[in-house]
Amino acid sequence: MTETIKAYGTKAADADLKQIEIERRDLLKNDVKIDILYCGVCHSDIHAAKNDWGNAKYPLVPGHEIVGKVLEVGDAVKNYKKGDLVGVGCMVDSCKECSACEDDLEQFCEKGMTATYNSKDKHLNTTTFGGYSTSIVVREDFVLKVPENLDTKAVAPLLCAGITTFSPLNHWKIKKGDKVGIIGLGGLGHMGIKIASAMGAETFMITTSEGKASDAKKLGADAVIISKNDDEMNKHAGSFDFLLNTVPVKHDINPYLQLLKRDSTMVMVGAIEPLEPMNGANLIMGRKRVAGSLIGGIKETQEMLDFCGEHNIVSEIEMIDMKDINNAFERVTKNDVKYRFVIDMKSLKEA
Amino acid sequence: MTETIKAYGTKAADADLKQIEIERRDLLKNDVKIDILYCGVCHSDIHAAKNDWGNAKYPLVPGHEIVGKVLEVGDAVKNYKKGDLVGVGCMVDSCKECSACEDDLEQFCEKGMTATYNSKDKHLNTTTFGGYSTSIVVREDFVLKVPENLDTKAVAPLLCAGITTFSPLNHWKIKKGDKVGIIGLGGLGHMGIKIASAMGAETFMITTSEGKASDAKKLGADAVIISKNDDEMNKHAGSFDFLLNTVPVKHDINPYLQLLKRDSTMVMVGAIEPLEPMNGANLIMGRKRVAGSLIGGIKETQEMLDFCGEHNIVSEIEMIDMKDINNAFERVTKNDVKYRFVIDMKSLKEA
Repeated sequence: MTETIKAYGTKAADADLKQIEIERRDLLKNDVKIDILYCGVCHSDIHAAKNDWGNAKYPLVPGHEIVGKVLEVGDAVKNYKKGDLVGVGCMVDSCKECSACEDDLEQFCEKGMTATYNSKDKHLNTTTFGGYSTSIVVREDFVLKVPENLDTKAVAPLLCAGITTFSPLNHWKIKKGDKVGIIGLGGLGHMGIKIASAMGAETFMITTSEGKASDAKKLGADAVIISKNDDEMNKHAGSFDFLLNTVPVKHDINPYLQLLKRDSTMVMVGAIEPLEPMNGANLIMGRKRVAGSLIGGIKETQEMLDFCGEHNIVSEIEMIDMKDINNAFERVTKNDVKYRFVIDMKSLKEA
Repeated sequence: MTETIKAYGTKAADADLKQIEIERRDLLKNDVKIDILYCGVCHSDIHAAKNDWGNAKYPLVPGHEIVGKVLEVGDAVKNYKKGDLVGVGCMVDSCKECSACEDDLEQFCEKGMTATYNSKDKHLNTTTFGGYSTSIVVREDFVLKVPENLDTKAVAPLLCAGITTFSPLNHWKIKKGDKVGIIGLGGLGHMGIKIASAMGAETFMITTSEGKASDAKKLGADAVIISKNDDEMNKHAGSFDFLLNTVPVKHDINPYLQLLKRDSTMVMVGAIEPLEPMNGANLIMGRKRVAGSLIGGIKETQEMLDFCGEHNIVSEIEMIDMKDINNAFERVTKNDVKYRFVIDMKSLKEA
């Protein structure tokens, strides 16, 4: 029924990750078994491990930016075969019947999607375990094809940071010549710059930090606006077609709303907490909009990977061994990473 | 060059309105001179008179819900003739050249629209004076045709409260069968109910006040949700296609966001001040949107009047004489009006 494999997880909210053993279900007919090569380290992994959201089930094995090779497929699997290069993102299952699933938006499944970790596994009486592990078994519908032309290890963060930024840019139909601002330069923001640029937008990095200007330009930003500089902000007032706000903490969105053109939108993908008070007039004057966006559906995630393959886009990464994860968590918490840690899973297999 | 007429205005922020004399410009070739029959009393009139927004120029004559009859037209006026029943709303001029004006959204004119009162008059070296007066001279492009089949005095509030609620319902394409919530039952909210119902929406009044339930139903609401009742709010979670938020003061929008369906919008038309902190997660989960909307352009205002003519929609009003305006201001401030005061301007003409 199950196979015992090696993983890295935590048994308590102290988030001290150690090597543990977990069970993976045996292959069902629609399942794909994946040998995990690389797994990205997302800030959510830390929140989950520390039970910041109050829903942690221990032992907890994080990891939802997974790239690997197909080891084996179930009898009914149609689209994958042994040896294929594949990815798994934030979801491993959903009802596939509700209106959200019918609209290819499994992240909003009305019955609740199954998250890659810390979710109820539909088949075993356990929680799901993430990609900080040697292998994973996933329903075919939630497995993505990874373009062969990209640097495989740097693809891993696309499965979360990539789709989280691609989806709003794609859904709000960013096109050549649009003036797009990416607010915040971190794991999400650096992907936002690359993707918006590849879509042909005139891409601005909007950051509080002057120190990030040169990096932003190297990543593809056409220009940088330092948001603490009122003159610069005023110069660009009412000029943006779209803003993608990746700031992951409480902040004041009012100065950004003033950058938007009439009838334009700022999409929030980072902050899931109460923001500083928004001034109603900043929406009313110019019929402006603020919206949210959550990762993306599986179909759109595949589109994102194909887009990245076509435009040669990967994440900027720093490779680590599995045993270095606790230090990596500390550095992510301090924003001391450019721009994503990726775990080389060979280091766990050989441990 | 000018004509001296009677008006009611205030010379200071004490907002003690008295009869004064003001100058109206003589007819220019594109102007329409209107004998004012009725003028609605909008909450903005009070804010302006009291200098709540810090931009009052005294003497200040409020009034931007004007209905009257054409007295005379300039040589180049094409669409109006003496005796026509017409209206004037919140704007009397704009540049008519910028991209907003080209899009028939003069309220967002990039050079700044000329408000009906307390704005710089382009032709006289004065501020504009509003409809608390016996007559007004307005550029033809900003004059509206008033349907003859409606109760004329109850049409006046359509010029502000009507268009402010019609415009978002129209712009966001509310259609038969949509589940629409109107938040707040006052001057704006009561028009929102009537218009959304006439558009064929399943219309809910969402109010903090149980006492307003029966009134809301009389106005055409299909049902009422008391927003302080968590059970009722939870029952409707994720079910609304659109919310129109008319609450004119600081409040917590988070409970309303939870009522929205995936990909749906709440439009703010009332509160122009900082709101209680919005929780980012309430936008991110379900890709929801918050937007603002400001009155409506002239073309859309005419559509609104035609729509109201066709559906026999007017405002609920209480008629007052001009001399009772200070008392009316007090009652509006206390929300003690169902739902709009309208001044019978005969009372000023005969004073």
